[in-house]
Formats: sequence, structure tokens, C-alpha cells
Amino acid sequence: MKNFIFQSPTRIIFGKDTELEIGKETKKFAGKVLLHYGGSSIKKYGLYEKVMKSLKDEDIEVFELGGVKPNPRLNLVYEGIKICRNNNIKFILAVGGGSAIDSAKAIACGVNYKGDIWDFYTTDKKAEKVLPVGVILTIPAAGSEASNGSVITKEEGLLKKAYTDETIRPVFAILNPELTFTLPAEQTLNGISDIFAHGLERYFTNTQNVDFSDRLIEGAFKSLIKNTYIVLEKPHDYAARAEIMWIGLVMHNGLFGAGREEDWASHMIEHELSAIYDIAHGAGLSIVFPAWMRYVYKHDINRFAQFAIRVFGAETYFNDMEKTALEGIKRLKNFYKEVGLPTSLGDVSIPDTLLKVMAEKSTSEGPLGHFVKLETKDVLNILKIAMN
Amino acid sequence: MKNFIFQSPTRIIFGKDTELEIGKETKKFAGKVLLHYGGSSIKKYGLYEKVMKSLKDEDIEVFELGGVKPNPRLNLVYEGIKICRNNNIKFILAVGGGSAIDSAKAIACGVNYKGDIWDFYTTDKKAEKVLPVGVILTIPAAGSEASNGSVITKEEGLLKKAYTDETIRPVFAILNPELTFTLPAEQTLNGISDIFAHGLERYFTNTQNVDFSDRLIEGAFKSLIKNTYIVLEKPHDYAARAEIMWIGLVMHNGLFGAGREEDWASHMIEHELSAIYDIAHGAGLSIVFPAWMRYVYKHDINRFAQFAIRVFGAETYFNDMEKTALEGIKRLKNFYKEVGLPTSLGDVSIPDTLLKVMAEKSTSEGPLGHFVKLETKDVLNILKIAMN
Repeated sequence: MKNFIFQSPTRIIFGKDTELEIGKETKKFAGKVLLHYGGSSIKKYGLYEKVMKSLKDEDIEVFELGGVKPNPRLNLVYEGIKICRNNNIKFILAVGGGSAIDSAKAIACGVNYKGDIWDFYTTDKKAEKVLPVGVILTIPAAGSEASNGSVITKEEGLLKKAYTDETIRPVFAILNPELTFTLPAEQTLNGISDIFAHGLERYFTNTQNVDFSDRLIEGAFKSLIKNTYIVLEKPHDYAARAEIMWIGLVMHNGLFGAGREEDWASHMIEHELSAIYDIAHGAGLSIVFPAWMRYVYKHDINRFAQFAIRVFGAETYFNDMEKTALEGIKRLKNFYKEVGLPTSLGDVSIPDTLLKVMAEKSTSEGPLGHFVKLETKDVLNILKIAMN
Repeated sequence: MKNFIFQSPTRIIFGKDTELEIGKETKKFAGKVLLHYGGSSIKKYGLYEKVMKSLKDEDIEVFELGGVKPNPRLNLVYEGIKICRNNNIKFILAVGGGSAIDSAKAIACGVNYKGDIWDFYTTDKKAEKVLPVGVILTIPAAGSEASNGSVITKEEGLLKKAYTDETIRPVFAILNPELTFTLPAEQTLNGISDIFAHGLERYFTNTQNVDFSDRLIEGAFKSLIKNTYIVLEKPHDYAARAEIMWIGLVMHNGLFGAGREEDWASHMIEHELSAIYDIAHGAGLSIVFPAWMRYVYKHDINRFAQFAIRVFGAETYFNDMEKTALEGIKRLKNFYKEVGLPTSLGDVSIPDTLLKVMAEKSTSEGPLGHFVKLETKDVLNILKIAMN
């Protein structure tokens, strides 16, 4: 195990009707907020009214900025910063999925910063005097509700970049699984793929002697798989929705990566896909990951075999660990296929015309990943594998 | 899953040489501290000098109170409170195991309280203006380094009582596995038994649909068992010491119990044993738990079978789940025996003379536990089973 520092102070309020606590939780921090959200769904299902009433009951003044899109855009962040500055707002409330939360985090970093907020996403500069962010989560996926990360897309040049710092963890996160009942199957699945990927990025590591966190991640995978089948059949199954929502948070709050080198090459490759083709992040990940695994598994056949055996209950071929390792990759891909996630670029109608461009763009600042360092040619090879 | 609130904000600084960070971490909170610790071991192995130097390097004024014993005493807490009040100390630094930390937490609760600190341990009263506590952990066991609990023993009447509140979670916890190399085997084992018990108290629950946290706890059990055998053979094995130390914290910071009803009857029964006979808490737990399991397993045979199969790899007798369930209890007891933990009252020379007294004392405020509610006669029966 490597030395590490871990601190995840987000207050997690989980369960039925917890969105009604939003007023009281917010009041601890501010009497005036920017309410930041996406499209029409929070209005369609009554969440918006509940939130407004709860905030009003605590005499909280509300400014609004909706319109956050998947792969949230820098221009909307600028707009949010302007609203906060003009109205002396010192608390951001995000209602939605990872996009609304990531956008809120960016606004929170920008209000007290004189330069361009994009600096934090493209240089080593760290934000100071970051505003606190509170969250009501409606889509289990990004794990941003308790994480130290934010991903923003700049429209010009289609650049999708991440900023990571401890100061941007939300101060509270409200998670009511009932709010996810109405998610379309596709969105549910894209979220599950994202959650799975957050485990995979941490699982495939060169750090030795990490048996405990290996087992935590494996347990999360097994529960996630089990509950995926349940929600596909019964979208209103509270128990299964709750498990998935809770797994989504824990998979990405940093606990599972404590003391481990993490990889993150697949995420970087996926960012190129969704930046150029605007596909959902989760859809991109279920395409990239099996291809990445096929390309790198020989680097540590035993670890891939462990994944196959412990997560998918694959047969152990004691005389052929490579066969065991490959079985795990096959089963992961089959799982994605079976539940309806895309597993090839062809599945989402992405042609092979820009593979080289994406490979070059993804490695423009140097090789990707840690489990295996990937040069431009390696990324290109992975994208070629991902074609089918 | 039940509704829950979870927040564990302790900053965890984990790994080699991390004790050297104590000065810098403390300086963020205070320029004057009470250094609270146990006996001679921190001086014997050089830790005391390192801590003093690191604090001195940051110009931190240090008052000292050593002498914390296992099952920490109320009288020493009173002394600590007096020292803090007389010297206007606003930060407590605990160096040691759960006893030093629990004692430090009690002092931290008492300094700004006009009444008797024992109130918090015996009534519903909650402490206000609790001083921050920082920790260097030297014994993986109690999990107090990041937990919301403290257990103190009052000498008169031999009362061992717990106080639980979010305000007493340490602000930081420094964990260097190397500091545990010199622990005697018996202390290592007692710690492991305590850690195991923190998982068992959460694992045996009536809450349904908790597959994810089931698997997290099972993973922790499996890793703990594996690494116990390693450290017994190689006490200086950093990797195994690190896993055990990290499991000890995570097992008891509350994450594994989130959304679950927990039991805690076995802990309550054990408190009577160690209050009267002053045996180590971990030793008491490895005696009480198998007896408790034998007494209650019929309440949920499937859950006990799951434990047997997933944790100990027991054979599944599909036509006889009770046999499978019993196999898990047997294997846990065998594990304890094999590593050298006591599994009966006879093993620690406790006679059967006070069983009834302990059963009555433990249930004086009502039945114990949640998985199965235990009346006085039930506790007596469990203690009788524990005789052999």
C-alpha cells in the first residue's frame, strides 16, 4: 500500500423524502443561493417545486440558472459566475446529475478568482476561496456528489478537461433513490457504466498488497451487476435503486483508491469521444474499457484473472491464467451488451475517420494512464480494437 | 436500506513516517496542547521523542498526561479536564490505542461542560463546545481514531459505558503501520478480534436489501483473516500491518453500518466481562461472539449461511441451510482458536460465579441488541454457552 491522505467530509443525507431537508441543510451555510440545474426533468416530476418550497420555508433567497447539458459547458459556468458576483451569492446548490454538480463546482471556484476559471482545468493552478456547494442528486453516475473532481467542456476546440482538488467536495449531498425511478433506461445504464468505470480505474493498479481495497471494489462490482438486472426489470424497485445510488457515491469518493496508484487512461480516451461526438460519458466508457482491457491485460495477467474469478465467478484455468484473464474481459463486455450498453464505436455510429485525431489529442500533454503508460500509437490501437 | 446520515470528516494521514507530520497537522488547530497517552511503550520505541520534536519544531506548547490504562478510567479523564482548564488548553492530542483516544475524547467533551462528564455516558445529554482531538494511532483495534464513540470505565461500581456523538470524531488521525511492528502478539490479536467484532455487530442485521454493505463487510473479514496469519508469522510485515490498520479504521468509521440496523449486544455483554475481570476487550469479544451466534442464529439462518459461505468459503448444504449456518460459526471460532484468541470464559479463567450478576447488570436499562432482543435470561444463557 502507498502512503495516502484521505478526507471525505461531505455530509450524506440518504433515503426517502430527504430532498425535503434541502432548506434546513442550506440554511446552515447561506441565506441566498444560486440554484443550478439542467433541463425540464426536475420540473416535470415535481422536484423543483419541493426544492423551492423547502428553501422558501427557510427564507432563503433563490437565484436560478438552469440549462446545464450533459458534458457541461464552460460558457454556462461563466454565466453562473457572473450571476453570483452581481448578486453577492456565496452558496451554490446543484440539483441534478454529475453535469449540474460539476458545473456548480466550477462556478464555486470562479466567483472569487480574477482570472479565467478555465485556468484550473488546464494548468496546475488551484482555486482559493471556493464557495461551498450543496447537492441534490438525481442521477447515480459521476459520483461528483461527494468527489473532489469536476469535468467541464470548452465549446471552442471541443476540449473536455478535469479539475481535481479537495476544496471542491460538496458540503452536503442529498440522495433520495425515489428521484431516480423515472430515469430512462438508457440514462440509468450510462450511469451504471460510469460507476463501474470508477471502480475499474482504481482496480487495475501496479500497487502491490492492496487486498482490502481490491475486495471492496470487487464487492461493489458484484452488487452493481446484481442490482442492474433488477432495475432494468423493475425501474421502481426502491431497494435496487438505493443500492446503485449508494454504490455510485462510494465508488468515487476516493476511499477505494486510498493507497493505490490509479489508472484513468480510459476516462481520458473517453473524454475525446464525448467531446467530439457528444455521446454520453457512460456510453463511451462501456466502449473504451473492454478495448483498453484487451490491449493491456498481459501487463498483469494474475490481476485480470482475479477480476474474472472474484467478480464474474469465472472458472479458474490453473494451467492457463491467460485464458482466465480473457474470460473476465469477455464477461464484462457480455454484461454491458446484455443490459443494453454499447460496446463498440460501431454501436454508436462513430466512424473510424477521426481515430488518429483523438489519439493525438488525448496524448497531447504526454502519455496516458499509470497501469500501462499509453503513447499516441497505443491509444490509436485501443480505439481500433473498440471499432468492433 | 434504511434512511441514514453519514459524515466522517476525519483527515486520515496514512503510511510510513507519517507521525512526523504531527506538528504541522496540530499547528492548524492550536499552539498549545494536552498530549495524552498510556504507558511506557511510546517512550520505549522512540515515538515520544519524535512527537515532541515535531511539536517543538512548530513551537507548540505541550502539557502532558500519561498513564491511560486499557479500559480507560474516569478519574484520569477528570484529571485531564482539570489540566486543560487550568492551562487554557483547547486541543487534545492522543497518542496510543483506543484507550488513549477514548480518554482524550472524554476530556475534550468535559473541558467546557460545567456538570459531570459522566453524564454524557449515562444519560441522553450531548456535549457542546467539544474540543478538537488529533490522534496518532499505535494499536489497530477500537477504530476510535475516526469513530464517533468513546468508552470509559468508572472505577466505583465497575461501570463501563459508551458515549456516541458526531462531535467527537477526531479532526485528524495519523496511522503509520510501522508503529505496530512491536506490538506483542496478544495485543495484535486482541485488536484483530475487536476489529472483527465491529464488522459482526453491523453484519447481523434485520435490515433487508443491504447487499452492497454486506459485501464490503465480507471483504473486510476476508482480508483481516488473511493478514492475521501473515502478521503472526512476520510481525514486521509492513504490507500486512498496513492492511490490518486500514481495515480497523474503515470497519468502525460508520460506513459499513450506513443504512443498516446494527446489533451491539455482544459488545454490551463484553463490557460487563472487562469491567469486572479487567480482561482485554478483544479477548472478551472472541469469547462472547461465537456464543452469541450459537444462541441467535435460528433468527436468520440464511444470513448466517451467507456468512459461512462468503467469508469462510464453507460448503453450501442446499438441503440443510442450518448445517451451513452452523459451519460458519464453527469456522469463526476455529479461526480465533487457531490464531490464539480465547474462545471460552474458561480460557481466561473466569469462573461461573458471577454470570447472573453480569447478565442482570448488562440488561439493567432494558434488553440488549437489535438483531434479537436479549432479556436477562438470554444473556445468562449466552454466558453459559461461553463457559466452554
